[in-house]
Amino acid sequence: MAQQADITAMRRAVELAARGLGATSPNPVVGCVITDASGHQVGEGWHQRAGGPHAEVHALREAGVLARGGTAYVTLEPCNHTGRTGPCAQALIEAGVSRVVYAVGDPNPQATGGADTLREAGVTVEQGLLEDEADAVNTAWLTSVRRGRPFVRWKYAATLDGRIAAADGTSRWITSAESRADVHRLRAEADAVVVGSGTARADDPHLAVRGIDEAVQPLRVVVDTEATAVKPGARILDDAAPTLIAIAEDAETTLTEVVRLPRAARGLSVPALLDALHARGVRSVLLEGGPTLAGAFVAAGAVDQVVGYLAPVLLGAGPQALADAGISTITEALRLDITETVRIGPDLRITATFKGA
Amino acid sequence: MAQQADITAMRRAVELAARGLGATSPNPVVGCVITDASGHQVGEGWHQRAGGPHAEVHALREAGVLARGGTAYVTLEPCNHTGRTGPCAQALIEAGVSRVVYAVGDPNPQATGGADTLREAGVTVEQGLLEDEADAVNTAWLTSVRRGRPFVRWKYAATLDGRIAAADGTSRWITSAESRADVHRLRAEADAVVVGSGTARADDPHLAVRGIDEAVQPLRVVVDTEATAVKPGARILDDAAPTLIAIAEDAETTLTEVVRLPRAARGLSVPALLDALHARGVRSVLLEGGPTLAGAFVAAGAVDQVVGYLAPVLLGAGPQALADAGISTITEALRLDITETVRIGPDLRITATFKGA
Repeated sequence: MAQQADITAMRRAVELAARGLGATSPNPVVGCVITDASGHQVGEGWHQRAGGPHAEVHALREAGVLARGGTAYVTLEPCNHTGRTGPCAQALIEAGVSRVVYAVGDPNPQATGGADTLREAGVTVEQGLLEDEADAVNTAWLTSVRRGRPFVRWKYAATLDGRIAAADGTSRWITSAESRADVHRLRAEADAVVVGSGTARADDPHLAVRGIDEAVQPLRVVVDTEATAVKPGARILDDAAPTLIAIAEDAETTLTEVVRLPRAARGLSVPALLDALHARGVRSVLLEGGPTLAGAFVAAGAVDQVVGYLAPVLLGAGPQALADAGISTITEALRLDITETVRIGPDLRITATFKGA
Repeated sequence: MAQQADITAMRRAVELAARGLGATSPNPVVGCVITDASGHQVGEGWHQRAGGPHAEVHALREAGVLARGGTAYVTLEPCNHTGRTGPCAQALIEAGVSRVVYAVGDPNPQATGGADTLREAGVTVEQGLLEDEADAVNTAWLTSVRRGRPFVRWKYAATLDGRIAAADGTSRWITSAESRADVHRLRAEADAVVVGSGTARADDPHLAVRGIDEAVQPLRVVVDTEATAVKPGARILDDAAPTLIAIAEDAETTLTEVVRLPRAARGLSVPALLDALHARGVRSVLLEGGPTLAGAFVAAGAVDQVVGYLAPVLLGAGPQALADAGISTITEALRLDITETVRIGPDLRITATFKGA
């Protein structure tokens, strides 16, 4: 039975971890709170960017000698390996922390073993406090480790009857300014934002994050199989954020920031695209593609989470949010769990997560 | 500034009013709480069925002499006219109530004036406490008075991408058992349940309320323009609830429980159908029609509220919840307000209400 003080400290650590979303890949987000021997908080920190100090190191620096005899609350098992920074388990031991409480075990074989090292040094170790919350904040990274490919969140904006535009193609704006601003938060949390050639051609999108201070810009990706949708001068080619155009191996282009991928039955191979992004350190993808690309991702089993912005609007005609996903009968439907619903201005944001994720 | 005791009593009156939903048409639902001179509740009641005593009469009977010098809290302005029961304003005066607090003014010209009668008799009268809540519980009736036709609530069940069935037509079950049970509550609250010929032909629906004690069965209505969808022996023709088949003036049928209506460009005239139902005392309609009939209602401006059961499922193909509603561009879209979202088992129920309603 967890004490309230433990819960309060771990909840703070989860909040701190969330500040790193979008900036730490290929590392996880981690938060850490340190209390002194009498239970007062004396340090906190979070992993701010890949290559920078781990959460524990930030928190230990703030705590100084007050960490001695105290407790460290960490959202993820302290690492045991020496990467670009030293092993955190060792740092905690050297600081004289007598108890370590962590929420989620590290699934990464390179990093695991921190708990054992701590125990061998005589530190009391407890695991599992607020595990669900800590797991949720790290969903993207944990999924990427388990699946060996980036976590994919598909975002769409539609009417109650599932239309993303009217019959004549007009769509500005189905959802509200509040919802559109919220999408920039999703972009900031992602390592890459992906659209298809249809969206590139129709909207000439920019895809960079706007309106969020200190956001790390995601990699902007266009799946442009025939290399015909993104033309020199496209907004996505500016220097606001890095850009990558995925084209077929046999397509011709004058663009330089391209990756050549094998074709699939329709368009490019989604697994090959995700492999290419993973190799570039991308651990989370925000799929902002239109119905065709979204259908290809669903068909490839490559949608881990759906974030739908539903506007209280009826159209009765117009293109759907999701096109052919290779599903022809109800038993083949992709079933998810609704994990959050939030009012965003006049709209409703629904988050549904794949059960297997 | 309302006192907490006043709010508590009126909230109870609203709860009581809701018990009458589906049973009082063509009357509104009304709840009443009576407190004695020292503020203790001594009586409560609600309008249980058309032709039965009004809420105030039930509450006064329970209160007896304790009502003298007390307060009556009523969700709707007490009536001033002598219908099948005497005027409630007079009954409150005769009982010696010294203060009447009501939430919503009566928009019905036949019944209005109760507040004036009370004031003339020296009773303190206050209006507006919990007006929004009392208005919401009576939305159907208030809308029917304001519009001169039944309130129409369109219910659909769909996937996140707006599909009501898979590409091959299979749909059992997109939404959960919990959602399907909840639909029976909506039926019990409605005076009539309406489907189209497509649904009648495909599903042979029964449309009666099951699983709700003491529910008043709604009138079951099929819009069967050509009189070809409902055949003798159809489940809807059993005696579980009354049934009405709406057919074109020139259609031929052997069925007896029919109403003949003028044709529209497609199908029957929706306004004529609603007029015919209104004339039969129907004040609230639950439209359970498929996409075609729903489209006709939207096109006729005859959808006041939408209740969508959204299952966390993706299909990418299959029929939509809403078909052609005569809307071709985004500025013509029907815009509503989301008024409630509730988790129903694994699904999400979204209620959106027409702004003008």
